Amino acid sequence: MKIAVYPGSFDPVTCGHLDILRRASAVFDKVVITVLENSAKSNSAMFSVSERVRMLELATAELPNVEIASFSGLLVNFCEKIGARYIIKGLRAVSDFDYEFQMAVANRDLNPQIETLLLPASKEYMFLSSSIVKEVGKLGGDCAKLIPAAIMDIVKEKFEEVS
Amino acid sequence: MKIAVYPGSFDPVTCGHLDILRRASAVFDKVVITVLENSAKSNSAMFSVSERVRMLELATAELPNVEIASFSGLLVNFCEKIGARYIIKGLRAVSDFDYEFQMAVANRDLNPQIETLLLPASKEYMFLSSSIVKEVGKLGGDCAKLIPAAIMDIVKEKFEEVS
Amino acid sequence: MKIAVYPGSFDPVTCGHLDILRRASAVFDKVVITVLENSAKSNSAMFSVSERVRMLELATAELPNVEIASFSGLLVNFCEKIGARYIIKGLRAVSDFDYEFQMAVANRDLNPQIETLLLPASKEYMFLSSSIVKEVGKLGGDCAKLIPAAIMDIVKEKFEEVS
Amino acid sequence: MKIAVYPGSFDPVTCGHLDILRRASAVFDKVVITVLENSAKSNSAMFSVSERVRMLELATAELPNVEIASFSGLLVNFCEKIGARYIIKGLRAVSDFDYEFQMAVANRDLNPQIETLLLPASKEYMFLSSSIVKEVGKLGGDCAKLIPAAIMDIVKEKFEEVS
Amino acid sequence: MKIAVYPGSFDPVTCGHLDILRRASAVFDKVVITVLENSAKSNSAMFSVSERVRMLELATAELPNVEIASFSGLLVNFCEKIGARYIIKGLRAVSDFDYEFQMAVANRDLNPQIETLLLPASKEYMFLSSSIVKEVGKLGGDCAKLIPAAIMDIVKEKFEEVS
Amino acid sequence: MKIAVYPGSFDPVTCGHLDILRRASAVFDKVVITVLENSAKSNSAMFSVSERVRMLELATAELPNVEIASFSGLLVNFCEKIGARYIIKGLRAVSDFDYEFQMAVANRDLNPQIETLLLPASKEYMFLSSSIVKEVGKLGGDCAKLIPAAIMDIVKEKFEEVS
Repeated sequence: MKIAVYPGSFDPVTCGHLDILRRASAVFDKVVITVLENSAKSNSAMFSVSERVRMLELATAELPNVEIASFSGLLVNFCEKIGARYIIKGLRAVSDFDYEFQMAVANRDLNPQIETLLLPASKEYMFLSSSIVKEVGKLGGDCAKLIPAAIMDIVKEKFEEVS
Repeated sequence: MKIAVYPGSFDPVTCGHLDILRRASAVFDKVVITVLENSAKSNSAMFSVSERVRMLELATAELPNVEIASFSGLLVNFCEKIGARYIIKGLRAVSDFDYEFQMAVANRDLNPQIETLLLPASKEYMFLSSSIVKEVGKLGGDCAKLIPAAIMDIVKEKFEEVS
Repeated sequence: MKIAVYPGSFDPVTCGHLDILRRASAVFDKVVITVLENSAKSNSAMFSVSERVRMLELATAELPNVEIASFSGLLVNFCEKIGARYIIKGLRAVSDFDYEFQMAVANRDLNPQIETLLLPASKEYMFLSSSIVKEVGKLGGDCAKLIPAAIMDIVKEKFEEVS
Repeated sequence: MKIAVYPGSFDPVTCGHLDILRRASAVFDKVVITVLENSAKSNSAMFSVSERVRMLELATAELPNVEIASFSGLLVNFCEKIGARYIIKGLRAVSDFDYEFQMAVANRDLNPQIETLLLPASKEYMFLSSSIVKEVGKLGGDCAKLIPAAIMDIVKEKFEEVS
Repeated sequence: MKIAVYPGSFDPVTCGHLDILRRASAVFDKVVITVLENSAKSNSAMFSVSERVRMLELATAELPNVEIASFSGLLVNFCEKIGARYIIKGLRAVSDFDYEFQMAVANRDLNPQIETLLLPASKEYMFLSSSIVKEVGKLGGDCAKLIPAAIMDIVKEKFEEVS
Repeated sequence: MKIAVYPGSFDPVTCGHLDILRRASAVFDKVVITVLENSAKSNSAMFSVSERVRMLELATAELPNVEIASFSGLLVNFCEKIGARYIIKGLRAVSDFDYEFQMAVANRDLNPQIETLLLPASKEYMFLSSSIVKEVGKLGGDCAKLIPAAIMDIVKEKFEEVS
């Protein structure tokens, strides 16, 4: 069985993430979408880890071969633990590029058995990020086209809390 | 009347900003240069919003069709409120590129009536930013060629305060 | 009257070009879309200059304040001759960036009165180019979403000729 | 059965190509490495299509689930014909990025069923290309670390012919 | 005597830094590797300035024409004080590029007598940074190939402290 | 004696090249500026190798520690022959970056004793290239600020010949 991990902050999950996940789930037998608990980004997250896991559950309900997880520690150790040999990342504009390369190279040095595959973002999500969602949402802008409908209520509530 | 908004942090305004403004003011009937009060950058600003507005007033005194403003909220809402259909941004080196594209695309999604135009920075300001000004100024370096003469006293005073 | 020139090879004109033109024609009183007769690209063009002018006429028929031209010589001289103070260019992915900056800087050195404005490509055309159209079309692929309907017959005929 | 196509000019195949192929062959059940007969690059190739196919055969002899092919026409049509739903590309430095995105987007427009996956080049091959091999080889430089040992004789002979 | 300064945060020094230093020490008569005490990065450093100086001493013990320093203030002033006319920086992936250009241009404006030279990172260190070291190390990953052996104990101890 | 080679096409030499050369000649004891006779670019050159050597002689007359050369073959072999351990390249906008990295890495593989150093272009020459000079000059534009005064006559004559 070919298992891939799709790691990220998902703070919150966007339509762009979901698009990558859907496409990845057609490539692999199982995709484990995974909240990174202790990445640099995670420390300044708007949503707690459990909120982010909950949003992923809601957003991915209809995808049969997708599982949700969160973990703290090295990504390659998590992959090993669950028997995943593939890491999936979406690739948007050029600024993603350097970071994803750094991580792919670091992960290969740590465990050469685990392969990173990059999926080019779809046109409509090429410039969408969780940061943009938060920037728009906190100012009262409409996020309906940016995030999955299933998480809209949770996200709206949070924006009302923080603004 | 063709009105453009030139938004930014202007923390502080640089000769590069002023160059973009001058050139934009020759394209449009009116340009409203606008301090973003609640952007991510603004939260860690060195100058208060009112100081930044004051500096813009001093620096743009001789430009007849330029107005100063500040606002909190969505940029496209501000544009609509004042009847502006154009957003002007300077474009410097490649790292600006991604962010400006993200914002241009996000703003078009929010309001397709409002057009973003990018002006390539002039050669001499291609690598000038407010961050560089602050990095140089805080360490006692000479900023005379980096910021408008009209704001030199305000900026110097601030650098003395913080260092 | 504010007149802009939108120069290019347009070999052939794509939906992306037309999108930029449409948006530019809302900014300026008149936009002159102009085939560069003697650029480096033009020498290896698939369509003759007169074919490209003809395609521009067909594709822009419904835009009242757009005119078609072609010229050989320096772009800034052409601008001066027709009283245009603005050059419009579309800006797509990062590889456009360097070239457009080089040209903008060169043109400013030649004539500082003429301003270059860059319009970020719309999401759906961010990765569309005349080269992609030709690569797809020559191999028998469907170009219906890539080029204006009005020029489809001319383009198809040419692809049949060359393949 | 999950079949991927790994298309390219392979003029000649390098150690970098082979590294991508090896890693891709661990992800998919079968990988068909395919010489593009009529791409823009192919027209100015140093090696004929049949020479390039021959070199791929020699270089991939020990990889059981790899097949060699060449084709002329649209890549997505070739994929469909052989039942491949995946396209594999290596991703090296930033200049690859734009082109690979353009092609990935164009191919999705032509056939949304076919997914493009990008594999980040390994560190040691990040800056290796067929062009570099040809530039070094034509001038008498040693290519032993740049191309697979199995094709060294063919390549050397060609360099002697052309220089 | 040709003296160069190699400035940085070195939080901690990596094998990549050491590679640049070694190569720079073959170009100049003396290289002063220098911890920037008050850069933006330094404020959020994991190691204190004196710890970073100590690590540089351990890591560079075998390089005869290398000296260690730290300073607070403008880099060009430090250069002048110690009679250095050259600044050395390593250049890795594209995201370094913009920042290094900004700094090189700012430093030339402050003192045109001082020249910045960029050394392209070696292949094996192209994607290595102090941040990656900290991200891997804090999560318990093995850093043996990423940092000099001479500082391993200090770094390990710190990771145990902070995690 | 520290000898550096500054290789290029110099078709024709620009003020940007001369700026790099001047700055490099302050770093090294001797700089040998060298026309690459058989690079890919050289094949489509506007000026012959001997014309390019002649222009370099005229443009560098006042620099005492600069010598002119041309060569065909591997750059690292040329360096070895003349006892040079350093290669100097100017680095302009981002598109230079990839190519210069590819060449630096290839040259290190061929001869690890030879070090490549990149000098960031000065602000005023950041977007200047021989191609821009030729594009402007062939169309009758003024090149006085783009190329050294000493070669103006030769260049003008050539532009008249080819246009």
